[in-house]
Amino acid sequence: MTQSITLAETAAFLQAAEDILILTHANPDGDTLGSGFALLRGLRSMAKRVRLFCPDEIPPKFSFMADGIKYANYKPKTIVAVDLADARLLGDAQGDFPVIHLCIDHHAASRPYAEKTYNVPEAAATAELIFALFKELNAPITPTIADCLYTGISTDTGCFRYSNTTAQTLRVAAKLLEYGARAAELNRRYFETKRKAYFSLERMALEQLRVLERGRYAVTALTRAMYDECGASEDEAERIAAIPRQVEGVLVGATLKELKSGGFKASLRSYAPADASAIAKRLGGGGHSRAAGCNIETTSLEEAEAILLEAVREELAGLDGRQ
Amino acid sequence: MTQSITLAETAAFLQAAEDILILTHANPDGDTLGSGFALLRGLRSMAKRVRLFCPDEIPPKFSFMADGIKYANYKPKTIVAVDLADARLLGDAQGDFPVIHLCIDHHAASRPYAEKTYNVPEAAATAELIFALFKELNAPITPTIADCLYTGISTDTGCFRYSNTTAQTLRVAAKLLEYGARAAELNRRYFETKRKAYFSLERMALEQLRVLERGRYAVTALTRAMYDECGASEDEAERIAAIPRQVEGVLVGATLKELKSGGFKASLRSYAPADASAIAKRLGGGGHSRAAGCNIETTSLEEAEAILLEAVREELAGLDGRQ
Repeated sequence: MTQSITLAETAAFLQAAEDILILTHANPDGDTLGSGFALLRGLRSMAKRVRLFCPDEIPPKFSFMADGIKYANYKPKTIVAVDLADARLLGDAQGDFPVIHLCIDHHAASRPYAEKTYNVPEAAATAELIFALFKELNAPITPTIADCLYTGISTDTGCFRYSNTTAQTLRVAAKLLEYGARAAELNRRYFETKRKAYFSLERMALEQLRVLERGRYAVTALTRAMYDECGASEDEAERIAAIPRQVEGVLVGATLKELKSGGFKASLRSYAPADASAIAKRLGGGGHSRAAGCNIETTSLEEAEAILLEAVREELAGLDGRQ
Repeated sequence: MTQSITLAETAAFLQAAEDILILTHANPDGDTLGSGFALLRGLRSMAKRVRLFCPDEIPPKFSFMADGIKYANYKPKTIVAVDLADARLLGDAQGDFPVIHLCIDHHAASRPYAEKTYNVPEAAATAELIFALFKELNAPITPTIADCLYTGISTDTGCFRYSNTTAQTLRVAAKLLEYGARAAELNRRYFETKRKAYFSLERMALEQLRVLERGRYAVTALTRAMYDECGASEDEAERIAAIPRQVEGVLVGATLKELKSGGFKASLRSYAPADASAIAKRLGGGGHSRAAGCNIETTSLEEAEAILLEAVREELAGLDGRQ
């Protein structure tokens, strides 16, 4: 059982904490890293020893967040997870952390795993909560911290494009610009610039793009052969996941990505009233209502497509009350 | 000679004005229409007679702004232009308006043409100024007015992505969400949704995409045969023009579009220090420093590419001082 705590209680807990280790989720995104590195820097400014553990390599576009940070060698007394909806999202490292003292997160579908949880599902990003925490702790927001928090918010909202963006999200972003966040430069990096190899992968994904279910479902696939042919990385492939839902009239967009380990990962995006997380849950996955994911254990793309189509059909049928 | 006036003076002028006609620029965008229709609705709430004149047809995605508005027949006493940098941007209608009483605009390169001008180049959009004007006039911001103003701001900033976005821009957007702007729905319409035919055209454009000049120049082409094959419109092709510049390391991106009338139109995009308008000017065109265009009079794509490449080379050579 976890204890749900308030912002003030979270601040008090961290005030009292010593020798902290911050955990991010595997396959790290801008929000888990931005939240983690901002919190690390803030707690260090309070003269605490803090390290950060990320189960996977940090993507180059986010590596600036760790610049200049050195890790002291100590046995952590306090384990704090940020943007980690489920302890299983630590991947192979999950077994290393049988006890997690605090979870700070915004995922509505969060499965409690920490002793204490500060969760605000209305927040567009965990970074929005970390910003509030800085205010509560009266910790200074340097330009680098502003860059980290801006990254979390802009990447989790598609640069303020998606429905999770609230007036509060925009106000926090305004403050971060005033604290020195290099918004235009970061936005260019996250949303505009792509490698030539990415565009080759996108071209192949567009060749595969099909619109089904009377125009309400669009799906594409990325195979290992495609990655090999164009030299694009799986990290770059994340951008492809936004495309199927962009087709006019589509309520559910899916991208099937063949995994190195075999099998497929389905990235799901939806528009209301379709619920991506409901589809993902049918197949053992999870996520947000507009963006979710699941693994499909088969080596056949055709079979993966059929399994996913069945789950999508159930969701779409539920919407209009007819099979 | 124009008289530069303040926000308070602009509000006082409009308070005293009667029988107003608002002018938008030709080839209307979200900011000129959003500003114009918001101002019209605000002034009407002050019991004034107001009409709006747009020199061109209003694009369907913006037509909701005019919903429910009826125009009374009267001879305007006060002509107010919004987001109109230059009276020539009224197009063929310029001659109909020898006197313009007030200009409200944010274009730095604005050529004065009105008796009074309220111009704030730091504003990301004219809609940001109209928002301030509502506050000054103490006029109510209805959900529809919030939609209009949000449209102006989001479309002029690439949904808060570009360098013109300031903390104030984000704060105004936050307020507009609170006034009821349907941000997510509008963003989806303006930035996400595309027809399947568009994606087919994009796939073909990516097939043509080449990166030249040691990675600093990327170019693609859209031929009549491609439009015919996928059924996409030239309007949809506008989005393609953003792609070449997005390739990592590229300073100049170009899209050559074969015209129905024969010949090619080159759409140019650049990142500093490269100047798209300088390239366009070499070929008899023009535009802004980051986005410009020109026509190339040849029916051979190869020849058009060669002519454009020569002009791009001159610009790039000027940047590093070596041929």
